[in-house]
Amino acid sequence: MFDSAEIGHKVGKREFRKAEDVLRTALLDAQYELLESRAFSVVVLVNGVEGAGKGETVNLLTKWMDPRHIEVRGFDEPSTEEAERPYMWRFWRVLPPRGKQCVMFGDWYAGALRERLAKETSATVFEHRLDEINRFEAMLAREQVVLVKLWFHLSKAAQKRRFDTLSADDRTRWRVTEEDWAAHERYDRSRELAEAMLRATDSASAPWIVIDSEDANHRSLAAGRAVLEAITRQLARSHEASAGGASRPELPALPDRRTFLDTLDLAQKFSRKEYDEQLEVLQGRLALLTRHKAFRKRSLVLVFEGMDAAGKGGAIRRVTAALDARHYRVIPVAAPTDEEAARPYLWRFWRHVPRQGKTVIFDRSWYGRVLVERVEGFAAEPDWMRAYGEINDFEQTLEEAGAVVVKFWLAISSDEQLRRFREREAEAHKRFKITPEDWRNRHNWAAYEEAVCDMLERTGGPRPWTLVEADNKHFARIKVLRTICERLEAALAA
Amino acid sequence: MFDSAEIGHKVGKREFRKAEDVLRTALLDAQYELLESRAFSVVVLVNGVEGAGKGETVNLLTKWMDPRHIEVRGFDEPSTEEAERPYMWRFWRVLPPRGKQCVMFGDWYAGALRERLAKETSATVFEHRLDEINRFEAMLAREQVVLVKLWFHLSKAAQKRRFDTLSADDRTRWRVTEEDWAAHERYDRSRELAEAMLRATDSASAPWIVIDSEDANHRSLAAGRAVLEAITRQLARSHEASAGGASRPELPALPDRRTFLDTLDLAQKFSRKEYDEQLEVLQGRLALLTRHKAFRKRSLVLVFEGMDAAGKGGAIRRVTAALDARHYRVIPVAAPTDEEAARPYLWRFWRHVPRQGKTVIFDRSWYGRVLVERVEGFAAEPDWMRAYGEINDFEQTLEEAGAVVVKFWLAISSDEQLRRFREREAEAHKRFKITPEDWRNRHNWAAYEEAVCDMLERTGGPRPWTLVEADNKHFARIKVLRTICERLEAALAA
Repeated sequence: MFDSAEIGHKVGKREFRKAEDVLRTALLDAQYELLESRAFSVVVLVNGVEGAGKGETVNLLTKWMDPRHIEVRGFDEPSTEEAERPYMWRFWRVLPPRGKQCVMFGDWYAGALRERLAKETSATVFEHRLDEINRFEAMLAREQVVLVKLWFHLSKAAQKRRFDTLSADDRTRWRVTEEDWAAHERYDRSRELAEAMLRATDSASAPWIVIDSEDANHRSLAAGRAVLEAITRQLARSHEASAGGASRPELPALPDRRTFLDTLDLAQKFSRKEYDEQLEVLQGRLALLTRHKAFRKRSLVLVFEGMDAAGKGGAIRRVTAALDARHYRVIPVAAPTDEEAARPYLWRFWRHVPRQGKTVIFDRSWYGRVLVERVEGFAAEPDWMRAYGEINDFEQTLEEAGAVVVKFWLAISSDEQLRRFREREAEAHKRFKITPEDWRNRHNWAAYEEAVCDMLERTGGPRPWTLVEADNKHFARIKVLRTICERLEAALAA
Repeated sequence: MFDSAEIGHKVGKREFRKAEDVLRTALLDAQYELLESRAFSVVVLVNGVEGAGKGETVNLLTKWMDPRHIEVRGFDEPSTEEAERPYMWRFWRVLPPRGKQCVMFGDWYAGALRERLAKETSATVFEHRLDEINRFEAMLAREQVVLVKLWFHLSKAAQKRRFDTLSADDRTRWRVTEEDWAAHERYDRSRELAEAMLRATDSASAPWIVIDSEDANHRSLAAGRAVLEAITRQLARSHEASAGGASRPELPALPDRRTFLDTLDLAQKFSRKEYDEQLEVLQGRLALLTRHKAFRKRSLVLVFEGMDAAGKGGAIRRVTAALDARHYRVIPVAAPTDEEAARPYLWRFWRHVPRQGKTVIFDRSWYGRVLVERVEGFAAEPDWMRAYGEINDFEQTLEEAGAVVVKFWLAISSDEQLRRFREREAEAHKRFKITPEDWRNRHNWAAYEEAVCDMLERTGGPRPWTLVEADNKHFARIKVLRTICERLEAALAA
């Protein structure tokens, strides 16, 4: 992939001036059109060999465009908070809102390459990471994040020439660091690995653009034009899309609706006395598990889903009663804030991914996309259809970073829901728990059940759902606590 | 302060049930009225002796109210990212938006007490911290954050009784940890220190509420009522305020407008050649300073203010050209997002406070409150008047945590501004830099100058402003770079 970037491209000074004038005006126009449309965001990934002028090019980009709307973010070695979360967490953190741009230095490629070069990761892990990157980038593309993947290239000889020239002058010697010379030492190995990486991650939605960087003018124009082209191409596409050219939605295979929920015996129950006894014992067991030394390297992610009035809040309170307030958070999932709504769907959950030793409890979750958003039509069919795969990827990522993911569906019968709704209306301090929306959802019971069954089928498997018979609250809470204990015990013993 | 909480308050079971019903309905009503009004937020600080039932009480609060709008946050030992920033940073991070509530465990008091008990801080540092807390809480009160400061108290004998009872039963033994017994050991010393702390931080806007906690019923009702009272009192106040009962604004003393800006010789300049030479040398000097070992324990906060077209962006680019992209961020200050607008004014700047070894550059800053917001009337006079003090506190906090704060006012003449405006209108790629708003601001030149002089006078002193003569861009950029180098050299040598 690098050969054509070593044939010595050049742009003369005069030609450059002329082209620069045209380019910067076009870039500004595109930037403002993007800002106004808020149709997508742009992430420019800056990679390449040391000494190729990456920093200078980025400075040019922020000079050519309005710097208030294009942020530069560089990533160093991960901090503790970052290292204790999935690899992608720190990149998720800085994704720009739609309408804006971000230039990343030291992005997910730089980290993968650095780890592999330092032999911290095996060839298999490296390949797995590239695979993860491909899925991540495909998701970004579908979530209206345009990637411009730039690779600034220099031949080994050109790199040496550049370092020698800078080092020869007192005033510019500071520009060449020891790290730069070390990079020159391992040029051949880096080049080989980088080429394999670029090949493996070159895709139609996010192709690599390799730039011959020896000539500064050529480099600058090539980079600027790549950004410009990516923006204008996507602007044209979003015009088409809003003109009604949406792609045909894929239809989900109809599942056998009787498979899961109808097999449950919702009438199972515990007496008050049995409940009190077991509750205290299970809470103690859970408390000791989260204080276990092995848990300091793990984390716990609990997902509570269920029809309205299924008892999610009550079950969560019985769990938190066993936990140390310094180590857990409950995230009630509500309408997204504007910072959240302007970014890919999963961003607002990534924000809350726990570090090691911590527990995060989601009261409703990312499954909203395939439940309420599907049933109420808030998400288009292609969008909620692809959410199954994205959710599976997300949860797999969490698990690979050491999280124990436990997902509960609290199942109640339609009759029991009705009884609880009426009780809520009757009691002053429960009124807030019942809204007209709850009654509306109840009328959609069948549609929700279908969505639930699809969800259970498509997102179970390696990270199985625990179905909780919840007509009796005592039974449900005990089952929830016992399941968490058993899952934690298994994980900590492994 | 604790004596009256040791006289043995008690509430019978029947009385409790009755009172609880009334209380939870009132709490819910208050919570929903708050949510609808979005007039203020509520932070409940949970402090007190071990074994006093803090956790249980918090669980009750989230049971009585709608848990989606009252978040529980616990703080453990600071993480690296937290320890490398000012003490208050992690509390700022979790301040709830207006309309919502947050319960904090291990808040700023717990940290101050823990450090002092472990003798990590001297008595003087402890007093300084309490002082800082008082100023912080006064600011919160003015920014519509209502604090409910609860202290759950047990006598030494009552604490022992509680631990003994729990330890005697197999099923509840897990509730008493080794830390609890260690706390019992140092009960007397803790009590003495806590009492001094409570006295020093008891204020009219945020008084301490000490709760006798031996009897669970009494404890629960006392805590619930304290929260209820705080919300309803503030709701009543905000009704009055919106009815037009605003307090008389304090008028700033008129400064001598000629003091600062008119003493500057704006015509100072450098030729292109001088500029190019010095630029490269100063950028090298700055690069080496930020790579200096001593800088790993410091951070750099740069503030750029100036009239429109004063050359802030160009100066910033000359600074970033010397920095490693992994270690700096430029924050262009724009209109607040909804997450930001719902919180105290300084929240959106606290978000960006750098950790050690990093640089953050503010392109406009918190001074917006005493410049554009004052002149345009976006902030009421009492609000921008108190901002001087709050800003001074904020910057002092940054410095005490190791940050080097360098503030620039880029001064241009009215004639030069006009020339640049016209140039911007004429050049295609500079159009974005000139808007109708810029022309409007220009007509307010005198009002802005007055605001600038007040700002320079009231926020200089220990953290002086650097006035930069900026009619000549070369001169301005060199002065900016040289100042940063000199300030950093002085700081790193100290």
